[in-house]
Amino acid sequence: MKTAVRQNLLAGALVSALVFTTTIAHAEDPLPSWNDGKAKQSIVAFVEKVTKEGSSDFVPPEERIATFDNDGTLWCEQPLYFQLLFALDRVKALAPQHPEWKTQEPFASLLKGDVKGALAGGERTMLEIIIVTHAGMTTADFEQIVKDWITTAKHPKFKRPYTECVYQPMVELLAYLRANGFKTFIVSGGGIEFMRPWTEKVYGIPPEQVVGSSGKTQFEMRDGKPVLMKLPAVNFIDDKAGKPVGINEHIGRRPIAAFGNSDGDLQMLQWTGAGSGARLMMLVHHDDAVREFAYGAESKIGTFSDALMAEAKKNGWTVISMKNDWKTIFPFENK
Amino acid sequence: MKTAVRQNLLAGALVSALVFTTTIAHAEDPLPSWNDGKAKQSIVAFVEKVTKEGSSDFVPPEERIATFDNDGTLWCEQPLYFQLLFALDRVKALAPQHPEWKTQEPFASLLKGDVKGALAGGERTMLEIIIVTHAGMTTADFEQIVKDWITTAKHPKFKRPYTECVYQPMVELLAYLRANGFKTFIVSGGGIEFMRPWTEKVYGIPPEQVVGSSGKTQFEMRDGKPVLMKLPAVNFIDDKAGKPVGINEHIGRRPIAAFGNSDGDLQMLQWTGAGSGARLMMLVHHDDAVREFAYGAESKIGTFSDALMAEAKKNGWTVISMKNDWKTIFPFENK
Repeated sequence: MKTAVRQNLLAGALVSALVFTTTIAHAEDPLPSWNDGKAKQSIVAFVEKVTKEGSSDFVPPEERIATFDNDGTLWCEQPLYFQLLFALDRVKALAPQHPEWKTQEPFASLLKGDVKGALAGGERTMLEIIIVTHAGMTTADFEQIVKDWITTAKHPKFKRPYTECVYQPMVELLAYLRANGFKTFIVSGGGIEFMRPWTEKVYGIPPEQVVGSSGKTQFEMRDGKPVLMKLPAVNFIDDKAGKPVGINEHIGRRPIAAFGNSDGDLQMLQWTGAGSGARLMMLVHHDDAVREFAYGAESKIGTFSDALMAEAKKNGWTVISMKNDWKTIFPFENK
Repeated sequence: MKTAVRQNLLAGALVSALVFTTTIAHAEDPLPSWNDGKAKQSIVAFVEKVTKEGSSDFVPPEERIATFDNDGTLWCEQPLYFQLLFALDRVKALAPQHPEWKTQEPFASLLKGDVKGALAGGERTMLEIIIVTHAGMTTADFEQIVKDWITTAKHPKFKRPYTECVYQPMVELLAYLRANGFKTFIVSGGGIEFMRPWTEKVYGIPPEQVVGSSGKTQFEMRDGKPVLMKLPAVNFIDDKAGKPVGINEHIGRRPIAAFGNSDGDLQMLQWTGAGSGARLMMLVHHDDAVREFAYGAESKIGTFSDALMAEAKKNGWTVISMKNDWKTIFPFENK
C-alpha cells in the first residue's frame, strides 16, 4: 500500500469517527444552546415524563399541544415590536398617498423621525398605526408586502434580518418538542397575517398553527376573481385574557405546555396550568444587557411585572434567565 | 408426509393467497363505496396528479389542504340540521329554569311540540334558539353536554346515533386524502364547539382542524380557577362569504380541494378554485329519496339552487350524485 493511500484511509477513518461522535453528542443533547440548570432539566424531565408509555403522566400524541408567545419569547421585541417597526416603514412608504398625514398625529411626528413623540400615546397609538397600515389591500397583497420587508429590513442594533433575531435555544426547543410528537403553536399578540408568511421557514410552524391578533377581512369579487379585502377594523386581540380565547377558538384543546415572557402571557399560562396531568409553564426573562436587552417590570414593551414574577413563584412556573440559562442567544453568534 | 398435514398446508397456502388478493384489491381501491364514474375518477386523477413528484401539477405535502363542509357533505342534515335538533332537546331540558318560555316564542311553540310553527321565522329563529341554548355555561360544561347528547340521541328516521348518519364514501375520501399527505379540515356553518367533541373519532379530524361558527367566549377566574364562559353573542358565522374568511383566519392557506353541498359552500369553492395549479371542487347532490333524502333548489335546509348548479357547470366543478355515484351511503347499511 502506498503511503499516500494509507494516509488518506487513516484520515477518512478519523473523519468518520469525528462525524460519528458529533452525531452521538447531538442525539444525546437536543438542546445544545441551553446551559445545564433547572430550566433545561425541567424541559427534559417533562418531555420524558409525558412521552413514556405506561407512565401515569403519559399524554397521547394528539394531546401534546405546546403554545408559544412570539415577541420576546421566540424572537426579540426591542427596541420596539418588529411589527411596529414594519408599520413605521409602511407609514413612510404610504405617505405620498396620504398628504393629510403631514399635519395629522401620530403620522406627522413619525414622518419627521420623532418615533418617541409619535408613540407617546402608548398601545392605543400603536394599534392605530397598525390598523391604518395593514388595511385597504387584499390579503395576498399584504402577504407580499410582508415577504418583501422581512427579506430586506434589518434590526437597528444587530444589523441582521429580523428573522435572524430569533432565540436559538427556543428554536431548538420547538424542534425537540416536535421530535417528541408535540404540535407546536404560536399564540401571539402580534398580527396573524404578519407572522404567517415566514413562521414555517424560521420556526417550522405552518400557517395553520399560528394564532394571533387580526383585522377584519371581507370576501369580494373583483374582476370576476374572489379576494379577501383587509378592512381597517379590529377583529381580535390575542393578548392577555384574549390568549385563552384564541387558543380555544383555533386549537380547541388545552395546551399541556406554554411559553411566554410578559404580562400578556399570564392568562395563557394560567389556562394551560389549570388542566389535569403533567404541565410545563415557562417564562423567558430578559436579563442579559450584554448579549440582548435587559428589561422587565418597568418596560412598556414586554412588561414582566412583579405580579407576574410572584404568580410564577406561587404556581411553580419556571423562569428562564437568558443570561444564565442560554449558552447562545442568537443563531448568528456561532457564525 | 401425512395427508392431514398436506391438506392443512394446502389450505394455509390458499388462505394466504386469498388474504394477499384481498389486500391487493383493497390497496387498489381506497374508495370502495364509490361507483366507478366521473366523480370517483376525478378524485383519483386529481390525487395522483398532485402527489406525483416531478409532475408540473405536484403540490408539496404542506400545501395539500382539503376543506369539507359538514352538514349535508359529511353527515346528513335532514329533517333538520342535527345541531338544531340538539338545541331543541336543550330547550326541553332547560325549560324548568325558564318559566317565561311558556309564553315566549319560539320557545312556547317548541315546548308544545310545534317545531314547524316555531321555525317559521327561518334562519333568524334557528340562530336565536342556538344562541340561547349554547350560552351561560363554561366551554368545558358545554363540551360535556354535547358528548352526552351525541352518544344517546338518535336520528328520527334512521334510528341510529347521529355520528352513524355520516356518509361512508366521504369518510373513505377523507382517509384517502390523508393517506396521500393531505391535511383535512372541516369548514362548516355549524358550531365549532358542537363539532369538536366528536370529529376526531368519527372523521379522524382533530379539533384544531375544525373551522365553524362560534359564539363569543370570555376568560374569567372562578374560585381561583380559569374558565371560558360562553356568552349569548355571535362571534363568527362561518357560512357563505364567511367561509373564505374562516379559512383565511384558521388555516392561512388556500385549499387545493374543497367539498360542499349547498349555496353556503359557493364562496369556499370559488376561493379554492381561484388559486393557481391543480384544483378539485365537488358538490354532493342529494338525489336519493330511497336511501337518504332528495332535495335541492326548493329546500330551506341545504339549498342547492339552480344558480349553484349553473356555477358548477361553468367552472367545471364535479357534482356528486348520491344515487348514482355512491354504492353505499351510510356505514350501517353494510352491517
